[in-house]
Amino acid sequence: MMYGLILAGGSGSRLWPLSRELYPKQLINLQDKESLLQATFERIAKCIPEENIISMTGVKHLSNVKYQLSSLAKNTVVLSEPISKNTAPAIALAAKYVLDKYKVDPVILVVPSDHLISDNESFVKTVKEGEKIAEKGYIVTFGIKPTYPETGYGYINVTSESILDGVKVNQFVEKPNEELAKKYIADGNYYWNSGIFMFKASTLLEEVKKYSPEISKVLEEFDFSKSDEIPFTIYDKMPSISIDYAVMEKSDKIALIKFDGGWNDLGSWKSIYDVSEKDKDGNVKIGHVLDEGSKNSLMYSSSKLVATIGLENIVVVETEDAILACRADKTQDVKKVFETLKKQNDNTHLVHKTVYRPWGFYTVLAEGNGFLTKMIQVNPGQKLSVQSHNFRSEHWVVLEGTAKVVLEGKELILSPGHSIDIPLKAIHSLQNPYSENVKVIEVQKGNPLIEEDIIRYEDMYGRV
Amino acid sequence: MMYGLILAGGSGSRLWPLSRELYPKQLINLQDKESLLQATFERIAKCIPEENIISMTGVKHLSNVKYQLSSLAKNTVVLSEPISKNTAPAIALAAKYVLDKYKVDPVILVVPSDHLISDNESFVKTVKEGEKIAEKGYIVTFGIKPTYPETGYGYINVTSESILDGVKVNQFVEKPNEELAKKYIADGNYYWNSGIFMFKASTLLEEVKKYSPEISKVLEEFDFSKSDEIPFTIYDKMPSISIDYAVMEKSDKIALIKFDGGWNDLGSWKSIYDVSEKDKDGNVKIGHVLDEGSKNSLMYSSSKLVATIGLENIVVVETEDAILACRADKTQDVKKVFETLKKQNDNTHLVHKTVYRPWGFYTVLAEGNGFLTKMIQVNPGQKLSVQSHNFRSEHWVVLEGTAKVVLEGKELILSPGHSIDIPLKAIHSLQNPYSENVKVIEVQKGNPLIEEDIIRYEDMYGRV
Repeated sequence: MMYGLILAGGSGSRLWPLSRELYPKQLINLQDKESLLQATFERIAKCIPEENIISMTGVKHLSNVKYQLSSLAKNTVVLSEPISKNTAPAIALAAKYVLDKYKVDPVILVVPSDHLISDNESFVKTVKEGEKIAEKGYIVTFGIKPTYPETGYGYINVTSESILDGVKVNQFVEKPNEELAKKYIADGNYYWNSGIFMFKASTLLEEVKKYSPEISKVLEEFDFSKSDEIPFTIYDKMPSISIDYAVMEKSDKIALIKFDGGWNDLGSWKSIYDVSEKDKDGNVKIGHVLDEGSKNSLMYSSSKLVATIGLENIVVVETEDAILACRADKTQDVKKVFETLKKQNDNTHLVHKTVYRPWGFYTVLAEGNGFLTKMIQVNPGQKLSVQSHNFRSEHWVVLEGTAKVVLEGKELILSPGHSIDIPLKAIHSLQNPYSENVKVIEVQKGNPLIEEDIIRYEDMYGRV
Repeated sequence: MMYGLILAGGSGSRLWPLSRELYPKQLINLQDKESLLQATFERIAKCIPEENIISMTGVKHLSNVKYQLSSLAKNTVVLSEPISKNTAPAIALAAKYVLDKYKVDPVILVVPSDHLISDNESFVKTVKEGEKIAEKGYIVTFGIKPTYPETGYGYINVTSESILDGVKVNQFVEKPNEELAKKYIADGNYYWNSGIFMFKASTLLEEVKKYSPEISKVLEEFDFSKSDEIPFTIYDKMPSISIDYAVMEKSDKIALIKFDGGWNDLGSWKSIYDVSEKDKDGNVKIGHVLDEGSKNSLMYSSSKLVATIGLENIVVVETEDAILACRADKTQDVKKVFETLKKQNDNTHLVHKTVYRPWGFYTVLAEGNGFLTKMIQVNPGQKLSVQSHNFRSEHWVVLEGTAKVVLEGKELILSPGHSIDIPLKAIHSLQNPYSENVKVIEVQKGNPLIEEDIIRYEDMYGRV
């Protein structure tokens, strides 16, 4: 019986402005269907029982990850890293978790949560082949046959020694320059490193102990048979290191299994363009787009009209609060813009104007001198926490649906057009006990008007 | 004593999405100062008494033109064409207006309202020289020495015969192709047609009679000594024809005076780029722009962050509801996008999300099933009309300033945080009698939610 580990950390810098630090790539619905995280869960649930799937994410994304997975499986385990320490500590910790908690030593399949795999059947077949190799004590990595000299991926050089359906790895090599990448492709014995791994829990922990004993030392302080919690003070002692550096580049127990199932890491807008369907001019148009004579360009509109004229190899992305226009072969530099915004303390790298919450979402409509106006949507059956604010009063106007408001212990039912004042410090809650969405305009008045001005008394999502 | 005619028609297609059909180029504040219309008025007021300046615009723009000019001069004359018939009927009508109304036959200076002239001193000097030539019975046109083979302008070929400081015109020629434009420049006797003219009223009307008698025939039906009104049924009989076709290309009384005062017709985003100050990479950045390595590009943000990476010769314009990304040498095709939107009945060509009114402005924040949310700003001393609605109720929340609300004859004073319900059919008015801006959130509920659902009882701007 296999176990699965979904790595759902991800900082969301490379698909900015669609992804944000607080709403990264794995959580986004790129094509109005499920998110990449949800697609990943469903994919591995084809070969692993749901209850054996563990997701690992950061505290910042915990409620969103839990919320997205809750629609797919009941009580799936989501572990929360109190601080990001790259992949090696997270993977080692998950292996320890399975051993401690379930008292078994199964093969664990590790998958990133933000990649695209178009052929799920081929994926399941490769996992089954990989499982047999992992059972023999190898760390198995999924290798992708390179199709062009990509300089943004790590490569894996293989030997000619077969291990069942796989092959023994000679060495992991870092991201090459273009010249080197071309040589790797001509050589024929190099594969792209997909970040998908399989191993027995005990194998991984032995190799970690051998090559990164500083991780093993911290691991000993955990006992998951008692609690799922990962205390900050302990986890912070972990080195910040990737599984490639910590183990894969050093171990001699690495095997590679070729995977040919339409893999793409969606690591840039260019790769989104590559995997999307194009029109006769080679353009990818998503949303409200009007074009005159552009070629080989990507136009993404989340709401407003995007008009393009005569562009060639350009990416244009429109979101509520930021616009990106970028040469297609420079989309890796989006990360630089993201970092600059972070340095400038410009919140545009951090959140969207629309912020998703377990109960629905809100959009900031207008901000001014001492006021803030939001539109709030509460999904059916959901409710905001019972809360109060020390520095602001609120005024709600119901737009759609029927809202239940509890104000200082008194229940009120409000229909569209009804409004209510929530005074400073009053204990209140906005709820939607019915089956249609509730939409409300909220006008906040006060100073400072910050999300942190909230005292929670009760919360159905455990945020008290 | 000269008279002035400001042509303030303009459909606003070429600087879309910043300009709109209902808020064209001449009304826009391009650099947070005055609009092009206001700058035009102030420029000609340097050589013409304010009371002799007439503006001609379409009914669609009448209230905005009046409003913008009201801050510069009291009781300036604004004539309103009930339908657009191009420049010849408008100019001939203005000449007739001056003769009828003021019983004088002065020199009239005709200027477009949406061009840029950087050197006002040189303009005044040229007008004074031009006046003398016009007094001698010539139609004087301001010619611009071409600096490159522009194919978007008409050219004027001159003879070697001097008339005071001007020169006699050989012929007006239409927009040339590039090859021809290059020949014109090499020839040295060709000038760009700036659209600025001077003539005695009687001279123009004689030439119109000679070369476009169908215009003169309709003119006879007007008598402006009695009324400033231009009835639709009469004006609609005018041919739709430009002054160039109707008179300038045919008359032998045309003189040209060279004008060298930093003229630009701002006819495209490319020309906005040309006249703007550039940074060391040749970029023009207006508003909230973050760039990584672009060159020779124009980035315009009206509110949201515009991030650009590696662009070359690209124009990116962000407005509240539409984004334009365009190759700099294709900005004339913006007109095509505008026309396509018009055909598709997409309102994005027509109005902004922010709509300016004589009393201030409103911005549509959110629309949904049976509701519409606006932010309304009422400028100091202004008030909305006394009105009622048959199909919607309204709810107002004051954000900033102190509002006076009159509801069914009752006066209320509302401070920030106060709210009020305006029931269906109730007669009401929102006013700002104080010296600070009033900002209000308005939530409309009803069906249909259209601007036309308004019955006006009283209006300080004459809109009843």
